[in-house]
Amino acid sequence: MVILKTISDKNAKGKVKKIFEEIKKVRKIDEIPNFWKTIANDPETLERTWNSLKQVMKKGSLDTLTKELIYVSVSMTNSCEYCIRSHIKAAKKKGMTDNMLKELIAVVAMANETNRLVESYQVELDKKLKINIF
Amino acid sequence: MVILKTISDKNAKGKVKKIFEEIKKVRKIDEIPNFWKTIANDPETLERTWNSLKQVMKKGSLDTLTKELIYVSVSMTNSCEYCIRSHIKAAKKKGMTDNMLKELIAVVAMANETNRLVESYQVELDKKLKINIF
Amino acid sequence: MVILKTISDKNAKGKVKKIFEEIKKVRKIDEIPNFWKTIANDPETLERTWNSLKQVMKKGSLDTLTKELIYVSVSMTNSCEYCIRSHIKAAKKKGMTDNMLKELIAVVAMANETNRLVESYQVELDKKLKINIF
Amino acid sequence: MVILKTISDKNAKGKVKKIFEEIKKVRKIDEIPNFWKTIANDPETLERTWNSLKQVMKKGSLDTLTKELIYVSVSMTNSCEYCIRSHIKAAKKKGMTDNMLKELIAVVAMANETNRLVESYQVELDKKLKINIF
Amino acid sequence: MVILKTISDKNAKGKVKKIFEEIKKVRKIDEIPNFWKTIANDPETLERTWNSLKQVMKKGSLDTLTKELIYVSVSMTNSCEYCIRSHIKAAKKKGMTDNMLKELIAVVAMANETNRLVESYQVELDKKLKINIF
Amino acid sequence: MVILKTISDKNAKGKVKKIFEEIKKVRKIDEIPNFWKTIANDPETLERTWNSLKQVMKKGSLDTLTKELIYVSVSMTNSCEYCIRSHIKAAKKKGMTDNMLKELIAVVAMANETNRLVESYQVELDKKLKINIF
Repeated sequence: MVILKTISDKNAKGKVKKIFEEIKKVRKIDEIPNFWKTIANDPETLERTWNSLKQVMKKGSLDTLTKELIYVSVSMTNSCEYCIRSHIKAAKKKGMTDNMLKELIAVVAMANETNRLVESYQVELDKKLKINIF
Repeated sequence: MVILKTISDKNAKGKVKKIFEEIKKVRKIDEIPNFWKTIANDPETLERTWNSLKQVMKKGSLDTLTKELIYVSVSMTNSCEYCIRSHIKAAKKKGMTDNMLKELIAVVAMANETNRLVESYQVELDKKLKINIF
Repeated sequence: MVILKTISDKNAKGKVKKIFEEIKKVRKIDEIPNFWKTIANDPETLERTWNSLKQVMKKGSLDTLTKELIYVSVSMTNSCEYCIRSHIKAAKKKGMTDNMLKELIAVVAMANETNRLVESYQVELDKKLKINIF
Repeated sequence: MVILKTISDKNAKGKVKKIFEEIKKVRKIDEIPNFWKTIANDPETLERTWNSLKQVMKKGSLDTLTKELIYVSVSMTNSCEYCIRSHIKAAKKKGMTDNMLKELIAVVAMANETNRLVESYQVELDKKLKINIF
Repeated sequence: MVILKTISDKNAKGKVKKIFEEIKKVRKIDEIPNFWKTIANDPETLERTWNSLKQVMKKGSLDTLTKELIYVSVSMTNSCEYCIRSHIKAAKKKGMTDNMLKELIAVVAMANETNRLVESYQVELDKKLKINIF
Repeated sequence: MVILKTISDKNAKGKVKKIFEEIKKVRKIDEIPNFWKTIANDPETLERTWNSLKQVMKKGSLDTLTKELIYVSVSMTNSCEYCIRSHIKAAKKKGMTDNMLKELIAVVAMANETNRLVESYQVELDKKLKINIF
């Protein structure tokens, strides 16, 4: 039940083939996930998204596990099933334990609750919050 | 421009006063932030929210900084200004550097983009994602 | 700081003038709120929205106060400040007390939390929920 | 196709068992719904959520049916299928008729439309809305 | 797995029957889509929604294809599967090519990313944006 | 009231300076908007976002005006004030008239309403919608 045919590993050509090779190598996987096989219908979007994710998700001041935890949290807030499942899988590969996942979910849920409390009560910014933080 | 009067530190009584004291002690602050002063209009919600947050945000398998980073990420996805600003402040107290914040924002933004790519293309779940992860 | 000029009561002509008169009469107010004065830039949208709201918000199986409470709850979930404030005002006119508002906010916030718990844990539908309810 | 195994009634132990008993008694049901069986993976979240819901959903200034109607409205705005279906069921138990549900849906949909009209036109707050309501 | 029974073409009576005839004629289709068959449970909502859509989606300053592209973009941002699929179908009927769809998705996804960048960095309005545009 | 200092045109150096020059040239403007001046705090995000937007927003199967209309529609659905205002401005530059804007807003609002009708009634996919569209 898909909107677009996926581009299978075998049918990949040119730019798509090259990026598929890179994804398998960098991510150490044998099979291209549906996300990439689907957006490969638009090779430009495939290339741009892959390059952006490589840059954004690489180890920096935040380690790669923390970045995955953030990815999972955003996906949960957006209720994106595919995104939740695939990034939980990625996070587990990078060391997320079951207990970490449970705590993450509790934080995500509480944050969604207090976000609504703030908006519902129209809480005013404290003076101390009205400044540059940097 | 507020919907509800806030309960000032001085006017707090009974249960509200007791929780205000605890907030100042636990959070090591001299002044109650507007969030608590506003929801104090409903002492039951104040008490329940404070107790829940104490439990959810305490050090566990995830350290307290990581939990704040998740809080910030959810608040950004929900576009809640007060929440973004107050939890950035809390995260900085716990060690978030400017570079960590910049990277966090980049991940939050990318996750929101790819969440929409997944929904727009109606990407199908890979077989490997259709299982219990626990 | 508005995108569109508002149509003042005095400048209203033709269809807009007629609807403004009706709004003041039906709502028992002397002054047209900014919402109507702004969407009056597009008389078709003004007319369609007014007629739809009249139909949807009229007393039916649900009384008019309950309908306002639902309106407020949706507006809080969408974080729409103008909508929250104006529908709280309307609900108060129809009998919402301060205590009712506090309880409503607590329910809205909890619902937003458990909605995210459901999505985060990807809770499966119970058999009993997979049927026609009507 | 779940992320977490559910905790069945039989396998429940200790705190989880105790809360399951209480849910069945308070809600007058024979079988624990999947929501509770799933979040039981995290007994702390189970306990906190159950206690919070008991407090928030109890009869107060708002009756329990009105509270369920609010719950349904938030869940519809958040597009949470499980939440929509389970809270419609709960609301029906408390007296929601088919006609009430139809009217509720019409209000939820209209509120979502006018919320977007307000944001799209960037409607300014009326002077009368810039004050404390309490 | 539906909440409401749908009203089939054959069982339609009175107002519902009349609107079903009109939908088939105007849309040049032989079969009423599930959307209409479902909301027909509430004939008032059926009538109001059909009349509103006829008015809003008719050719105006924007052609009907552009209006469908906007519909698809909103539905993608709201992650509404039925809406995405049915409005992609409608857009294709009006001339949307596969390449147009791919570009539309890329814009929708980028807009969702930069919307979050703006909120995360709390970008201030430029002076030039603080004026009436009309 | 900003979280991050903006990088002014004068203080821009290296990569940031080069991109600022390009933005002014490509967009034919004299002054860098706050969006770019703010995300310039993170030169990598500045560069990536600028390059992505150049690629995504360039004339293709969709003309540049249509792409701006989509951008505005997504921003309205997300209630992002800065994004709404700045992309309305961009769309006007590319030929959007006041009437086109009014019609766009009407479509965005209606789409948000029917999206919620679909989710509230849990409308089932028609058989015809369960196939590959490409």
